[in-house]
Amino acid sequence: MSRLVMKFGGTSVADLERIRRVARLVAAEVESGKQVAVVVSAMAGKTNELVAWTDGAGAAAQGIPESDDEYDVVVASGEQVTAGLLSMTLRNMGLRARSWLGWQIPIITDEAHGKARIDEIPPEKLAAALDGGEVAVIAGFQGVDRQGRIATLGRGGSDTSAVAIAAALEAACDIYTDVDGVYTTDPRIEAKARRLAKISYEEMLEMASLGAKVLQTRSVELAMAYKVPVRVLSSFVEPGEATGAGTIVCDEEEIVEKRIVSGVAYSRDEAKISLFGLPDHPGVSKEIFGRLADANVNVDMIVQSHARTADTANMEFTVGKRDAARAVEIVRAAQQEIGFDDVHVDEEVAKVSVIGVGMRSHAGVAKTMFGALAEKGVNIQVISTSEIKISVLIDAAYTELAVRALHAAYGLDQL
Amino acid sequence: MSRLVMKFGGTSVADLERIRRVARLVAAEVESGKQVAVVVSAMAGKTNELVAWTDGAGAAAQGIPESDDEYDVVVASGEQVTAGLLSMTLRNMGLRARSWLGWQIPIITDEAHGKARIDEIPPEKLAAALDGGEVAVIAGFQGVDRQGRIATLGRGGSDTSAVAIAAALEAACDIYTDVDGVYTTDPRIEAKARRLAKISYEEMLEMASLGAKVLQTRSVELAMAYKVPVRVLSSFVEPGEATGAGTIVCDEEEIVEKRIVSGVAYSRDEAKISLFGLPDHPGVSKEIFGRLADANVNVDMIVQSHARTADTANMEFTVGKRDAARAVEIVRAAQQEIGFDDVHVDEEVAKVSVIGVGMRSHAGVAKTMFGALAEKGVNIQVISTSEIKISVLIDAAYTELAVRALHAAYGLDQL
Repeated sequence: MSRLVMKFGGTSVADLERIRRVARLVAAEVESGKQVAVVVSAMAGKTNELVAWTDGAGAAAQGIPESDDEYDVVVASGEQVTAGLLSMTLRNMGLRARSWLGWQIPIITDEAHGKARIDEIPPEKLAAALDGGEVAVIAGFQGVDRQGRIATLGRGGSDTSAVAIAAALEAACDIYTDVDGVYTTDPRIEAKARRLAKISYEEMLEMASLGAKVLQTRSVELAMAYKVPVRVLSSFVEPGEATGAGTIVCDEEEIVEKRIVSGVAYSRDEAKISLFGLPDHPGVSKEIFGRLADANVNVDMIVQSHARTADTANMEFTVGKRDAARAVEIVRAAQQEIGFDDVHVDEEVAKVSVIGVGMRSHAGVAKTMFGALAEKGVNIQVISTSEIKISVLIDAAYTELAVRALHAAYGLDQL
Repeated sequence: MSRLVMKFGGTSVADLERIRRVARLVAAEVESGKQVAVVVSAMAGKTNELVAWTDGAGAAAQGIPESDDEYDVVVASGEQVTAGLLSMTLRNMGLRARSWLGWQIPIITDEAHGKARIDEIPPEKLAAALDGGEVAVIAGFQGVDRQGRIATLGRGGSDTSAVAIAAALEAACDIYTDVDGVYTTDPRIEAKARRLAKISYEEMLEMASLGAKVLQTRSVELAMAYKVPVRVLSSFVEPGEATGAGTIVCDEEEIVEKRIVSGVAYSRDEAKISLFGLPDHPGVSKEIFGRLADANVNVDMIVQSHARTADTANMEFTVGKRDAARAVEIVRAAQQEIGFDDVHVDEEVAKVSVIGVGMRSHAGVAKTMFGALAEKGVNIQVISTSEIKISVLIDAAYTELAVRALHAAYGLDQL
């Protein structure tokens, strides 16, 4: 008998009416003959309320480290509530169901409270419940560490819970969300954006890390590692109509109709930092990026340019906008050791990327990209590439223009 | 080193400001050299919110039995939140603390979900934490059954949690609440009511079961069984001023200054049911009360009277107001078998009681009671007595008058 993990986020379980809707979607899958485990988030808004309380309780702190283990105790309660309510609702519809909390399964995590990683999910108890004909309603986002304390997986962690449980149960995983799939680009920018029937794990990973917030990055990594077939679909689909809906995230080999470029993504979350007048000798990069790494500042794109006449270089790199001020502080504090003349921050930048596994075997992808942008007069500030992605940093004012130009240039409006 | 369990109810932890106040009270006890465990309720209003959701989820039910195990999963989350927040707050004040949920200690209960009873509390883990200098912050109201499922103890169950934990840890138990102790009667009715410095378990038990809602009845039974010294005091006492405050509930032998009557209690929660024209032969009581017991209707006071001339009897008994309609339905349905002419319900009744361990050795207590009531023209409808209590059922309109008359008659305003 085939097994299915269904995951519903906070907006899908925001109130009792929506929980009943979710219960009907679950019932339809049970009726179709599947064994079903359901992973739920906290009701929309509840996690924020709980987090605000922990902030308040921590606000009395005077330089004392955060109590992340107690934060987890408080915040994990939100998913517990939803799991109980959905289980009651399913029973009232005549199904057999019970709730499972992280410590009951158990979902064993490391001790990095507030952002724990799942170490292990022994599948025996859940599998026995499913084999016994019971729907397992699982509180997402939470597990238990080896000390027996509650641990949460960080924001968006319910996606990761769902995929990890699907891996443990050798099940497929349907992620119900407020969009009906993965699109070739953001439909709010390009009305011609199309839903993809399938996308590879690698492409989804690039999309997710670029700010297409359909799936949490770690859940995609996990799905790829354990080859869990994941489907993204809307929780507003009618019961019984889920078949064929949404976007399937799967192995590259399972995608028959290969595309060179699958999507155009963008992010306005980065800032560009420029250092001018650096000494042109080995070790400068280490001086800069070693200091940033020590301070936990993630650097994304980097480009170094040499002045033609002088013996100095310039360095440009991007960091998350919220880290920008701190990054500048760190390099300024080490101006002597690094040796530069001036530092400049530009927050008015956007990163636009084209993504596609077809790039591996097709030349000319970059050429098409640069040509399309040049034609629209979009200046490229920084370029970075991976095996299946080309990203460019541009003036943020050109974001929509660039996205639309690239979407057309790769024929994505004619899938 | 002496151990203390401190219990705080929902109004005492209603918001972060009050939780900080609780933390200061805890800190004062720790500074005085005690090992401290704290038992907390859900923040005021939270349990009602959670219960309303479970009602909503169950509202879809069509004659399907309630999911009390899932009710417990939902409702127990309230105490979990408070335990985490208080633990964070204590740490931020520089104390070592951690939260404990029912399943972590564990507090092992039976499987009567929604109104579970505590079977066992292995003290080892908590004792080790206390011996290690940590404040144990315990979620009240909850435990775990032997199947590993969360169970709650029923409304007011946090008192029971606190006393049970005190018994397990061989600790004293301070119950912080919104009144500053146990009074000779309700101060809202009699301004001359006085706070008792001490009261015996037996007297407190009668008070509690009569509707003086200071302590949950089961918590008093438990305290009596395990000889846990319990103190009731206000959570608005200033830190460091708790010594000597409140009312101590203890063994009768520890009360030096014995009183004949300790308090006057009343309850308006009962209804009187009268059956007229019953056949006067053995087995009639069994017919009536057997049926009510089968339907889980608790009967309190009972009086049977014989008509002087006829061969019939009348029966009067009291049940909780919310059970009254059902009780009438049950006896009506069996009118043939029981054999009575008519049934009548009176909800305008009140039960007034005088309570005191001194009654055991003093005659004349009843005489004083009946005399005082007669003097005010209060008619007594039903009388019931126990070793340390005399209760009378009267017209509800006379409640305040009767309470004040009795309070004066036993000299309780001159303690």
